Amino acid sequence: MGTTLTFDMIQAARDNLQGIIKETDLFYAEKFSEETGVALHLKLENLQKAGSFKIRGAYNKMLHLSEAEKAAGVVASSAGNHAQGVAISATKLGIKSTIVMPKNAPFAKISATKNNGAHVVLEGYGYDEAYEKAKIIQKETGATFVHPFNDPYVIAGQGTIAFEMLEAQPDLDVIIVPIGGGGLAAGVALAAKQIKPSIRIIGVQSENAPAMYEALQSDKLEHVPVTRTIADGIAIAHPGELTFPLIQTYVDDIMTVSETQLSEAFLFLLESCNLVCEGAGTVSVAALINNVERFKGQQVGAVLSGGNIDINLIESVINHALVSTGRRTQIKTVVSHQPGELARLFACISECGGNVLSIYQNRNRKGLSMYQMGVTLVIEAIDASHKAAIFDQLTHHGYTFYESHTQTN
Amino acid sequence: MGTTLTFDMIQAARDNLQGIIKETDLFYAEKFSEETGVALHLKLENLQKAGSFKIRGAYNKMLHLSEAEKAAGVVASSAGNHAQGVAISATKLGIKSTIVMPKNAPFAKISATKNNGAHVVLEGYGYDEAYEKAKIIQKETGATFVHPFNDPYVIAGQGTIAFEMLEAQPDLDVIIVPIGGGGLAAGVALAAKQIKPSIRIIGVQSENAPAMYEALQSDKLEHVPVTRTIADGIAIAHPGELTFPLIQTYVDDIMTVSETQLSEAFLFLLESCNLVCEGAGTVSVAALINNVERFKGQQVGAVLSGGNIDINLIESVINHALVSTGRRTQIKTVVSHQPGELARLFACISECGGNVLSIYQNRNRKGLSMYQMGVTLVIEAIDASHKAAIFDQLTHHGYTFYESHTQTN
Repeated sequence: MGTTLTFDMIQAARDNLQGIIKETDLFYAEKFSEETGVALHLKLENLQKAGSFKIRGAYNKMLHLSEAEKAAGVVASSAGNHAQGVAISATKLGIKSTIVMPKNAPFAKISATKNNGAHVVLEGYGYDEAYEKAKIIQKETGATFVHPFNDPYVIAGQGTIAFEMLEAQPDLDVIIVPIGGGGLAAGVALAAKQIKPSIRIIGVQSENAPAMYEALQSDKLEHVPVTRTIADGIAIAHPGELTFPLIQTYVDDIMTVSETQLSEAFLFLLESCNLVCEGAGTVSVAALINNVERFKGQQVGAVLSGGNIDINLIESVINHALVSTGRRTQIKTVVSHQPGELARLFACISECGGNVLSIYQNRNRKGLSMYQMGVTLVIEAIDASHKAAIFDQLTHHGYTFYESHTQTN
Repeated sequence: MGTTLTFDMIQAARDNLQGIIKETDLFYAEKFSEETGVALHLKLENLQKAGSFKIRGAYNKMLHLSEAEKAAGVVASSAGNHAQGVAISATKLGIKSTIVMPKNAPFAKISATKNNGAHVVLEGYGYDEAYEKAKIIQKETGATFVHPFNDPYVIAGQGTIAFEMLEAQPDLDVIIVPIGGGGLAAGVALAAKQIKPSIRIIGVQSENAPAMYEALQSDKLEHVPVTRTIADGIAIAHPGELTFPLIQTYVDDIMTVSETQLSEAFLFLLESCNLVCEGAGTVSVAALINNVERFKGQQVGAVLSGGNIDINLIESVINHALVSTGRRTQIKTVVSHQPGELARLFACISECGGNVLSIYQNRNRKGLSMYQMGVTLVIEAIDASHKAAIFDQLTHHGYTFYESHTQTN
């Protein structure tokens, strides 16, 4: 390391990345902005090459290697976007890259990393084991370890996003940016404050992985265990020693968001903006849409840091968001076990426009008489008030039912 | 009508739309391009204002109304994107708009149209009834009817897309564009051929709504019945009298795509490009990815015309594409009805990495003995060859099973 990050380094990175990265669009979410009074501008790093901002830092780092270092190759450990950022950058620069990935990394990411020209080594079942293996490879081969965030050239590369955002929209009042290890936030915050001192920078973490949030509260960098989160790209137990003081200095505030808030932000981006974001990429929007009052009348830039989400997770996230917003619900009720009773139940729901997605009947539920049948229904509604209308209709027709929760299944 | 479409009108439209529409990005699908040798550039009209290209034509049309016409307002009929294009444009120009929508139009589209400032009239249960009602309103009120495609100013507005594409990527060899009524294709084709005479234009229709395709084969515009398609935005039984001769002159070739090809293109855009497209928006990509050989070595521009797809349809389309590509499968088998048999079946599948999404058991299947249980499983695989490996494993362990098809359920 040794080098201290400066604004000049970020400016230089911008030149270095010209023609290498995509200068992504700053997308104005017009409908949301008109409805809420918050002018929302989304920085589309989910449409960056390889689907995330990571190529910026990785390429800038490798460009600064000496010829001897380049010849010795690079090594990195990652289950996700950093792997591809390093692989692509190395291939572009003619550098040999070895990426250590956990054995349980998504198949799509492993094959993408290989396709991008890296030699992939599978090791262990989590980031830590992959990291240790990468360190061993580094020692054995003399390759340079490319850290995902704790490196001034990496941070400088990520900081180039601030230039693009403020050129496209010079009147931005706030930039909201995800924080994991802190490389993106540190770079963006330092650059933005130099370009426009009045701007405010707000960092966002998943409440299931709040290490930097805790560090800023206690002024002390400590290991904070991570709980599973769909924002896996920023689930870092121990953020960077280099990024922490930069974030202390340049980031004005830090917030956390819940899994449900993340899923709702994902649905908003998918449905209202036609954009796919990975969990980590949605935290900035999750923080905004749950704090609209705070940003009223302001020009807000939100960084969508990446878009690489597993297709099966997309289905789960959509479902979770639809349930949490009342557009989909599972209820349990009881009907008499005789012909016509299910038809009557279905008619009652369809009369007020409810759509039944699935039905499951059984007679094993404890407490049922021999003449009754337990029924579990998944119903689709337009919104929460439509759901309430369907519930009223069911009550009006004499049904007793309850909405299933995790507690009651 | 009376006015004949000219290149000058499209150039003028471009000036007229400056600052009104978003000049959308031309997105280079790098990974696909490297893998296939087809350089694919996606014109992101799914990120256009209100999520489709329709605002271009609608705004350009209304701008050319006389003051008296503006004062009398406009009327249109649409279940989809044209409704919003007209509503937004009218509001921007201070014109009163009435949009007739079918009663079964998606709730989200109805409320979006209202939110965009239109007076919404709900009539009938299909486009035709809404259209008739709009014609009545036109006669009663003296409002101007804004046609979705059969109008030279509307076509001129849509044609502005060609300028943007060829400025961003002057070396395009081909532009692939969806065709419904033909307004988009006619405008883009006329403009592109003027700007770059060597360019080839290929139109694409859903095979379930091939009216323009048939018209080009027979040189005769006829009513062709529409079968249900996820590309509902281009499901037009009778394309335009104005657009047809333009397409005859300027479009080099026309292709059709199947529903399954559409679903696979949707999944490609969602998974590999992080973009949400509606069915009609994916036809150009569907045509390309199913004819890669034809476009090898070429610079191909594909117009993603819009992104407004119902969230429930997204789930169905993803599922359909995963099944059709072998990444998800439903099988039926039979096990002995005794403890441990299901555990053995699950172990067999998980041993080779198959993931069971759902299981349904019953003993009512015809042909089962009293000591057997029918089992229906939905299994997730990495790809078609992984699915085959799971099937081999099941066979190897002595299971007899079959994959469910529509024919066999």
